[in-house]
Amino acid sequence: MAKKKTAKKKKAAPAAAPKIVKVKPSKRDVRTLNQLTDMADSVVKSASRAKDPKLEIPTRSLSNVKFNKSKKIIEMGKNKTGRLLFNLNQAKSYMQTMLVGSGTKRLIDEGKTTSIRGLYYLLKHTIEGTKEETFGDQAESDPIIEDVEVLLNVLREEMHLYAQKKGDMVGNLVLRDKGDVIDCARMGSGGYGIPSIVEPDVLEFVKCDAKFVLHVEKGTVWQRFNEDKFWKKHNCILTHGGGQPSRGVRRLLNRLHNELGLPVYCVLDNDPWGYYIYSVIKQGSINLAYESKRMAIPDAKYLGIRAIDYERCNLSPSVQIALNDSDRKRAKQIAAYPWFEHKKSWQKEIQTMLSNGFKLEVEALISQGVSYVTEEYVPARLAERSWLD
Amino acid sequence: MAKKKTAKKKKAAPAAAPKIVKVKPSKRDVRTLNQLTDMADSVVKSASRAKDPKLEIPTRSLSNVKFNKSKKIIEMGKNKTGRLLFNLNQAKSYMQTMLVGSGTKRLIDEGKTTSIRGLYYLLKHTIEGTKEETFGDQAESDPIIEDVEVLLNVLREEMHLYAQKKGDMVGNLVLRDKGDVIDCARMGSGGYGIPSIVEPDVLEFVKCDAKFVLHVEKGTVWQRFNEDKFWKKHNCILTHGGGQPSRGVRRLLNRLHNELGLPVYCVLDNDPWGYYIYSVIKQGSINLAYESKRMAIPDAKYLGIRAIDYERCNLSPSVQIALNDSDRKRAKQIAAYPWFEHKKSWQKEIQTMLSNGFKLEVEALISQGVSYVTEEYVPARLAERSWLD
Repeated sequence: MAKKKTAKKKKAAPAAAPKIVKVKPSKRDVRTLNQLTDMADSVVKSASRAKDPKLEIPTRSLSNVKFNKSKKIIEMGKNKTGRLLFNLNQAKSYMQTMLVGSGTKRLIDEGKTTSIRGLYYLLKHTIEGTKEETFGDQAESDPIIEDVEVLLNVLREEMHLYAQKKGDMVGNLVLRDKGDVIDCARMGSGGYGIPSIVEPDVLEFVKCDAKFVLHVEKGTVWQRFNEDKFWKKHNCILTHGGGQPSRGVRRLLNRLHNELGLPVYCVLDNDPWGYYIYSVIKQGSINLAYESKRMAIPDAKYLGIRAIDYERCNLSPSVQIALNDSDRKRAKQIAAYPWFEHKKSWQKEIQTMLSNGFKLEVEALISQGVSYVTEEYVPARLAERSWLD
Repeated sequence: MAKKKTAKKKKAAPAAAPKIVKVKPSKRDVRTLNQLTDMADSVVKSASRAKDPKLEIPTRSLSNVKFNKSKKIIEMGKNKTGRLLFNLNQAKSYMQTMLVGSGTKRLIDEGKTTSIRGLYYLLKHTIEGTKEETFGDQAESDPIIEDVEVLLNVLREEMHLYAQKKGDMVGNLVLRDKGDVIDCARMGSGGYGIPSIVEPDVLEFVKCDAKFVLHVEKGTVWQRFNEDKFWKKHNCILTHGGGQPSRGVRRLLNRLHNELGLPVYCVLDNDPWGYYIYSVIKQGSINLAYESKRMAIPDAKYLGIRAIDYERCNLSPSVQIALNDSDRKRAKQIAAYPWFEHKKSWQKEIQTMLSNGFKLEVEALISQGVSYVTEEYVPARLAERSWLD
């Protein structure tokens, strides 16, 4: 009970300001800090010119997203939306934007990273003398974080924000992660847990003998490939993203492709979700179009599994999973994506799935043998150079 | 098109039986194989005695689960349910049970593992001459797998079945995973991805300097602790389970505790879900009561965060998350668990949360500083030996 009383007494005193110990910023951090300072300076400049403080934020809506046919990635257009301090409808989001900027600066100053939920908590407080909260809930702070990303043209990871960790990696690659040398060829059955932030100042490639990357959708399928030492036999790197890959996994694949020149082959389920995962890896996502240039891999290949595999691999009717209405609707939407719209191979792929009337999971191949997928299916597709582009 | 025609021709031929290459079984495998053979022999024995083939399966229902007060774990009672081949209501599940047994034997013979979804696909087929499927969907095969586990008294992992991978580990521990030596103190920001199967023949402890295990609920919190090198400063092992820990994570914690004698401290959210995670780590789960003896850690401690932390840590009212009706209901259920029912400390803990009227996430501590949780909160609790038991 004594402890509780002390706590209560403490409560009466004003909350001590948290300690901030500054660290030397990295080169990447200096760039982000400069962008943040420019943003803050804009307020002072406006004020000294007796103008309303205003931010011009690139518009993050479907109408401002386009497919760049030469770069083959989804990009944001040039539309911007003004956000004014002296406008009753925009004042709160203006101040929230500045608050996210200041929180980001604090993280960089301290040399620390946190999650988007962490930043929400860091910035959430009742504005003095009012009952107004800076953010009602995280659904309010998340879009503001994205606004700051596009406004400053920085990745979220450069704002020292990380996401939930997802995905693992093994293969013929040695890397340095925060100073530790990690040989991905000696990671047993567990593998190296792909970090959320994989920018070059955190994660460096030391040595790579691998000739390509095989990316599989699910951890359970990854375990099959790792157990059969597929990456050793075929001299490659093996990754999974636990379903839709996180930003960390996508950025890592992008770096492996661009910096080490490795082709990326995807083994995903034959269903609209698998097609969509491929689309995001390849062209970027519509929601986060502004990061495509550092995330998308236009050259990524879709190895399978394919709608023709039901016949090609002589699968049993028992492995069919009937398409439902939402699958059919989703498949048609994906077929109409500008990057699939004019590709005969993709139109045929999606049409075959629709006329089959069923989906196929990668696991369905097990009906031809536990290691059929690692010993026959994928090696045959690679040997034939048979994939969708 | 030529390819498609070939595929079609192939289809006409009967499906080739998948190749099975037997490997030498491990000591653990020999035990499981013997159990499987005994199960199969029982059919022959019954037949030769002109008796109905019958399995006696320990009952996996709440009524057959009890808390063993001396061992302090949830255990199954002695009730069994008969499953007969010559009973129209039980014939299908009898045959499914045998089928899962035969699939398991095949996995062990081949020295391979698969997911429970993989086993479902491996065993799913149309019974010759009928339109009857061996399993309608995975919801039919999963409980049969659990039946075989209790029937043979083996862990699912010993049946060569794995779950989705979840959770990561770093710290002062060197282990050998399938022959690869992994130093968990040199895993950078990514960490070692905890495998799904962590039995001693796959994962051996080579060297451990750590004095305890700190298990945190979420990957995002784990990243904060890893970034601050908490495990280095406090000479420990740091794990997370990505929410409710998977079987692999629980079994690994159990092994670290029992084989290396390390205390296990948990840092979880202060809400009914966090309490429940602790309860499962400590006493086992009601659904999977039969595995408690190899999963549960009755000595695990709940370090926080506590309902009193709102006052003790002088947190801002902004971090409160109001309890809803389902939280209150769940909290009362947990308070009535036989292992919490007579513990004053837990009754007080849950009562304080209920009278607070709000939950607190671990991330809420960030309002006292980005590294408050790693530099002050947890070290203070450890120094004071302040935890719930």
